[in-house]
Amino acid sequence: MIPRYSRPAMAALWEPANKFRIWFLIEAHACDALADLGVIPAEAARAVWEKGDTLYTDARIARIDAIEAEVKHDVIAFLTELAEQVGEPARFVHQGLTSSDVLDTCLAVQMTQAADLLLADLDMVLAALKRRAMEHKMTVCMGRSHGIHAEPVTLGLKFASFHAEFARARARLVAAREDIATCALSGAVGTFANIDPAVEAHVAAKLGLAPEPVSTQVIPRDRHAQFFAVLGVIASSVERLAVEIRHLQRTEVREAEEYFSPGQKGSSAMPHKRNPILTENLTGLARIVRGAVVPAMENVALWHERDISHSSVERMIGPDATITLDFALARLAGVVDKLVVHEDAIEANLNRMGGLVFSQRVLLALTQAGVSREDAYRLVQRTAMKVWDGDGDLLTLLRADSEVTAALDDATLADLFDLSHHTRHVDTIFQRVFGAA
Amino acid sequence: MIPRYSRPAMAALWEPANKFRIWFLIEAHACDALADLGVIPAEAARAVWEKGDTLYTDARIARIDAIEAEVKHDVIAFLTELAEQVGEPARFVHQGLTSSDVLDTCLAVQMTQAADLLLADLDMVLAALKRRAMEHKMTVCMGRSHGIHAEPVTLGLKFASFHAEFARARARLVAAREDIATCALSGAVGTFANIDPAVEAHVAAKLGLAPEPVSTQVIPRDRHAQFFAVLGVIASSVERLAVEIRHLQRTEVREAEEYFSPGQKGSSAMPHKRNPILTENLTGLARIVRGAVVPAMENVALWHERDISHSSVERMIGPDATITLDFALARLAGVVDKLVVHEDAIEANLNRMGGLVFSQRVLLALTQAGVSREDAYRLVQRTAMKVWDGDGDLLTLLRADSEVTAALDDATLADLFDLSHHTRHVDTIFQRVFGAA
Amino acid sequence: MIPRYSRPAMAALWEPANKFRIWFLIEAHACDALADLGVIPAEAARAVWEKGDTLYTDARIARIDAIEAEVKHDVIAFLTELAEQVGEPARFVHQGLTSSDVLDTCLAVQMTQAADLLLADLDMVLAALKRRAMEHKMTVCMGRSHGIHAEPVTLGLKFASFHAEFARARARLVAAREDIATCALSGAVGTFANIDPAVEAHVAAKLGLAPEPVSTQVIPRDRHAQFFAVLGVIASSVERLAVEIRHLQRTEVREAEEYFSPGQKGSSAMPHKRNPILTENLTGLARIVRGAVVPAMENVALWHERDISHSSVERMIGPDATITLDFALARLAGVVDKLVVHEDAIEANLNRMGGLVFSQRVLLALTQAGVSREDAYRLVQRTAMKVWDGDGDLLTLLRADSEVTAALDDATLADLFDLSHHTRHVDTIFQRVFGAA
Amino acid sequence: MIPRYSRPAMAALWEPANKFRIWFLIEAHACDALADLGVIPAEAARAVWEKGDTLYTDARIARIDAIEAEVKHDVIAFLTELAEQVGEPARFVHQGLTSSDVLDTCLAVQMTQAADLLLADLDMVLAALKRRAMEHKMTVCMGRSHGIHAEPVTLGLKFASFHAEFARARARLVAAREDIATCALSGAVGTFANIDPAVEAHVAAKLGLAPEPVSTQVIPRDRHAQFFAVLGVIASSVERLAVEIRHLQRTEVREAEEYFSPGQKGSSAMPHKRNPILTENLTGLARIVRGAVVPAMENVALWHERDISHSSVERMIGPDATITLDFALARLAGVVDKLVVHEDAIEANLNRMGGLVFSQRVLLALTQAGVSREDAYRLVQRTAMKVWDGDGDLLTLLRADSEVTAALDDATLADLFDLSHHTRHVDTIFQRVFGAA
Repeated sequence: MIPRYSRPAMAALWEPANKFRIWFLIEAHACDALADLGVIPAEAARAVWEKGDTLYTDARIARIDAIEAEVKHDVIAFLTELAEQVGEPARFVHQGLTSSDVLDTCLAVQMTQAADLLLADLDMVLAALKRRAMEHKMTVCMGRSHGIHAEPVTLGLKFASFHAEFARARARLVAAREDIATCALSGAVGTFANIDPAVEAHVAAKLGLAPEPVSTQVIPRDRHAQFFAVLGVIASSVERLAVEIRHLQRTEVREAEEYFSPGQKGSSAMPHKRNPILTENLTGLARIVRGAVVPAMENVALWHERDISHSSVERMIGPDATITLDFALARLAGVVDKLVVHEDAIEANLNRMGGLVFSQRVLLALTQAGVSREDAYRLVQRTAMKVWDGDGDLLTLLRADSEVTAALDDATLADLFDLSHHTRHVDTIFQRVFGAA
Repeated sequence: MIPRYSRPAMAALWEPANKFRIWFLIEAHACDALADLGVIPAEAARAVWEKGDTLYTDARIARIDAIEAEVKHDVIAFLTELAEQVGEPARFVHQGLTSSDVLDTCLAVQMTQAADLLLADLDMVLAALKRRAMEHKMTVCMGRSHGIHAEPVTLGLKFASFHAEFARARARLVAAREDIATCALSGAVGTFANIDPAVEAHVAAKLGLAPEPVSTQVIPRDRHAQFFAVLGVIASSVERLAVEIRHLQRTEVREAEEYFSPGQKGSSAMPHKRNPILTENLTGLARIVRGAVVPAMENVALWHERDISHSSVERMIGPDATITLDFALARLAGVVDKLVVHEDAIEANLNRMGGLVFSQRVLLALTQAGVSREDAYRLVQRTAMKVWDGDGDLLTLLRADSEVTAALDDATLADLFDLSHHTRHVDTIFQRVFGAA
Repeated sequence: MIPRYSRPAMAALWEPANKFRIWFLIEAHACDALADLGVIPAEAARAVWEKGDTLYTDARIARIDAIEAEVKHDVIAFLTELAEQVGEPARFVHQGLTSSDVLDTCLAVQMTQAADLLLADLDMVLAALKRRAMEHKMTVCMGRSHGIHAEPVTLGLKFASFHAEFARARARLVAAREDIATCALSGAVGTFANIDPAVEAHVAAKLGLAPEPVSTQVIPRDRHAQFFAVLGVIASSVERLAVEIRHLQRTEVREAEEYFSPGQKGSSAMPHKRNPILTENLTGLARIVRGAVVPAMENVALWHERDISHSSVERMIGPDATITLDFALARLAGVVDKLVVHEDAIEANLNRMGGLVFSQRVLLALTQAGVSREDAYRLVQRTAMKVWDGDGDLLTLLRADSEVTAALDDATLADLFDLSHHTRHVDTIFQRVFGAA
Repeated sequence: MIPRYSRPAMAALWEPANKFRIWFLIEAHACDALADLGVIPAEAARAVWEKGDTLYTDARIARIDAIEAEVKHDVIAFLTELAEQVGEPARFVHQGLTSSDVLDTCLAVQMTQAADLLLADLDMVLAALKRRAMEHKMTVCMGRSHGIHAEPVTLGLKFASFHAEFARARARLVAAREDIATCALSGAVGTFANIDPAVEAHVAAKLGLAPEPVSTQVIPRDRHAQFFAVLGVIASSVERLAVEIRHLQRTEVREAEEYFSPGQKGSSAMPHKRNPILTENLTGLARIVRGAVVPAMENVALWHERDISHSSVERMIGPDATITLDFALARLAGVVDKLVVHEDAIEANLNRMGGLVFSQRVLLALTQAGVSREDAYRLVQRTAMKVWDGDGDLLTLLRADSEVTAALDDATLADLFDLSHHTRHVDTIFQRVFGAA
């Protein structure tokens, strides 16, 4: 939760002003339901709304803090300050509730708010990826396995692959959002002994949450663990895209570069440097978000009906993981959007390997022509190794190999070295990822 | 993957015999599709099934291993041995596929098989929890927050809470199963350059998988990361239930005990010991399953179209996490099923605190009677602290407090100390968790 | 790094004022060395000290931030502001250095400062543990394995065990401090191409660091990973002590309690509650500190001579892990120091099990008297199970068992039920832990 | 613990034969000490050695397993089988010990044995790194920060950097080995109630361990956590070296390659591939070893004097982490030893950037010549950006820049483009790392 890696809307979610505002809404809506049930006077509920339905200013927050320093209990401090606003009817507030009801339901609201921002971030990333995918749908570039040139792909396919991955990320986050969007107003140890379940139902509906089927004073922490786990998976996808760009930008590859603004300085010592610092930064941010996953899982096994060990963890990882991921996704969208593509370098790299990338097609053609798989492999590897060692290009050398020419005539052989062969199914894949054109 | 913590069906999934069998099915189904497309002769596809459709015996596996020791490539070793079975038509096998197509699709099949076993395990756990929940629906016992007696709950509510949690676990696993149930037969770097997408569609359908929309030689690892993350969350719920039982079994509480078979020895040194070793063991197993989560996430950011760093990780955590969780869930189901409940101890603990558990009801009644919340709190706390220090029971002391009796008459006061008040909404909660009776 | 869980001295370490001050010291000491070498004029070095050797006020920090917003490079922003202070001679500052020299050496200083505070914290914890160990050296209490009563220990032994553990923690932190206390002023890619190694040696000596033997523009991150790993181990020991106290405070045990100040409110709903919230909080804080360990390890594998992915991670976990652990250790020292011990409850618990805790002694005596180990075990377990089920106390029942009395006469039997037997070696253990009395 | 990633010596450490052998040694040495103290007859101790001092064959292990299946307690099963070997005097074995004494001391022996193998592995890695460092001490190659060409280093410096890192790894492992090399024979709950501390001292000395100062039935788990944490840091250094080699081997860089044996097949589909699969594998293995760190830390907070939740974790991560790291280090030593260096590619890459790597030297020379730092930076960056965009080489363009030539004459300028400038201090660094020549 450091300013350098935070954006205002997400950071504000976790500020006291938003938290106390949600606490107020929970209490006030509960008062309405309690009044409907005849548990408290209708005028009391009205008074709460009339006198309490305002924003939490710095002054009010400071007052709450001052009370908490004395009573050492945050919800009691909040209620005391609220009573100062509302006056006598305030004694009807919080009837039958326990602190956890307020805290956990508030956290649920904050996490759904956070999820909504993250979903909007993912939409930005998806939009940028789709735009770049369409732009470079047929920009043929080298595909690499193990860092070694393999066979051609298109730059658009790379973007499409990430689009599909972030679309999965989005679907998982939607599910995780639903998982944590529950409301518990069940009182001490969750039995509703002193509060009617109708209160919970009312507040839940007002806040856009579902009632927690069975709470034990706390909302069960497997929900939160699942949420943070999903953030960790998303962060790992951020890392994959960041690493891809870092690779593409390295000097020897240089097929793409992060946008470098005029006036930006890459290095205090080396003026020529243009470094992929945004994606390196994203790589680090992914580690931080992942760092929240196991602590969140350790929070699940609370003792009996509840202990409060989860609280300090959530005070840290709640803001940290969501703020960091929000920042990372927004940064990522910008990086993708403004990524500078060097098509000349892409083409140069494609031609670097003397046609070795077509070796599999030759292998298959030999097999089709009746050569055994093992012999075909041996034939192609023999020549490929020469190319690899810099002794010429594959087509020329194969044309000089009588064992090869015995199986494949020259036209057939030449035809195997055709890039368009590798892009035949790009449309199919794009349709799978982006739907019908 | 140590025998002590494994069950045969899950362990067998990860054995070479199952793996090679799945590889065979992938290749054989692919041959059918290739034959339909006219890429290979129909007789070749038939020959593969006729001569190759048998189980992988130890002898065959040994032969594959021997070949691999030479060629240092597992899929090539497999294909070579298959060619020894099938003869000449074998040269048409694996046309246009790359090793990753076979490996990744096989892993998808294994993980769905593992998920199915885990879902069955979860059903066992759920059944045991439901049975015990119904049995003890109205067994009133002490609810505890912070390890401190709070207010009464029922033992059935405890079981219901875990039932709801494991039902969520089940739903998440169903989703995670779907997430990893994809088939990729897209060839080198995933472009289908040398294989028609129809082959993938055919094999996917035969194996109960969906085609991977866009693969890059590998099935993207965010799918697997999500799967292992869900296992980690489930393991954490196992831990919560295990910790609950360990607490209930501790000497001073002793409300429940793991079943202790005749002839079992609790300690080599202390013959009287009956230890909750199964649930302690489950606590440890949860740590192991969680230990797979971050490595699985680190596997996501493969370089370019793929590197093979994920492979060693998956060879370890694939079997380890699923076998361990399978064992843990089965053990947990047994522990719940046979858990010995000591109703006498439950009742004794309930009465231990001199009625302090009713303090909140008194607080609320005072407030309802017109006392301010702060005064009511002070009044109750003053007496509660005496009870806490062993100076009598709450009802007796309150009856002697003129400030209290000024607000509440004796009948009203006595009525607050009624356990049934705390079980009024058990039906509601059970209906939420288990549905209509 | 949230105020609730931070203490001022540690938090200040990570504030911009301290960071920029250290940057200044690095640059100014480097100027001295450069002047000695004749690389820059002696007057320039003098000017830097004379005009720059002041604290970093909020105004200066704001100025640096403003420059950074423009140039997007923190060290360049710092140098530009310094030049505004120092004037023309400032152009000699930072000669031959690269930003990482300043950043990494500064981080080393901050981490040693943090380590020193943590060592002082550990000394507080150790002092409290020692005092309580001595106080309760012979307070016999029940020892428990698996949460089940085992044999008597003393409360002092519990404290001694934690003292030994925190003494190990201290030794590990001293080693980890040494591990990260290095200075690198080796210039771009670490070759000293544009800076003499003598500069590094001078600055290192001035800052209490050792020169980094071989840096690659950055100080290698295995050093930092080791440091955070040690913090994680220490946090786990904090958790062990916290869990011990939480257990001792649970209602049914209640042998010890966190100090509960007058006026403190345990629960907004249940006035009688006195909860172990400090140790529950410590349990959560331990999870947070551990959450930094794997990210720190992931920071090790930087690309080639360096990438900057580590930076965002360290900006977060550097402050978070040290501030949290500092807060946790200070809180822990206070908890131990003020822990309320209930000797009456300790004694009651000791007598709760009808003498079962002496079962091993009986077992051994039977073996010594010639009974086979298997028979002795069977004999003792038979009676022990009756006691466990509430049918009397062990000594009485054994006296009525003719097989037992055939082997052991009554005086011998009675003698086995002597608590002092269990405290014979407390002195030995205390001497091992605390040294000679 | 899968055969593919294990070496025989380390795997054997964790086999039952070694475990039971260590158990026997503990019990037999304890008998000697007990006999010396007069607790058991000297003949009994002698009998144990005479009849029991043999290896644990498969038959004996099967017998122990059969007994354990019945009694459900491993140490009792072991003792029962030992009694079958030793006969009547066996009833004196295990006097006053508890199972944990045997298990924990055995684990300490196994972990020291494992540490010794790992130290030997590290020595292999260090030897290989030193040899290659010396071989390529002056092989100038491009240094890269952020994946971007920075300034020249030497290949020997790269190796030296890793040598220093693995030397630190070695020192940390030596310390961690000492940390876990303790012996506890303190009986139930660690009070020595039924066993004299002299027994522990005797057994510790015989096994090369130190007595555990204060055990609580178990050896405290912070020791083990520290051990596994150190393994995790070492694994991260393995990853750094693996990632470096993977980068050097990528097609566009190709400065070094893993040795590729004749007959090896890189890809079933693409015969030309030579992939860095060993270092990719090492990257994955590092993730596995790191995966053990947090579970080991979670093992620390055992309940009261002990629970057994740590046991299942250690049964898995004990073998897995040590076997995997042993395999990884041995593989790494081989990779380094046989790494193929392409000096032609190194030189070509060095010249790729048109002299941009000398930009800092120009910057410094301009500053020395009286140009302000800001102006110098602007001057150099202006020209550097042209070179970066392919418009010529740095020296030529600078010679055409009148602002530059006004400050630097031609000879001075040319002199700045001298590689030897960057290797001036290689000797200094080598002396720091490898000591005096």
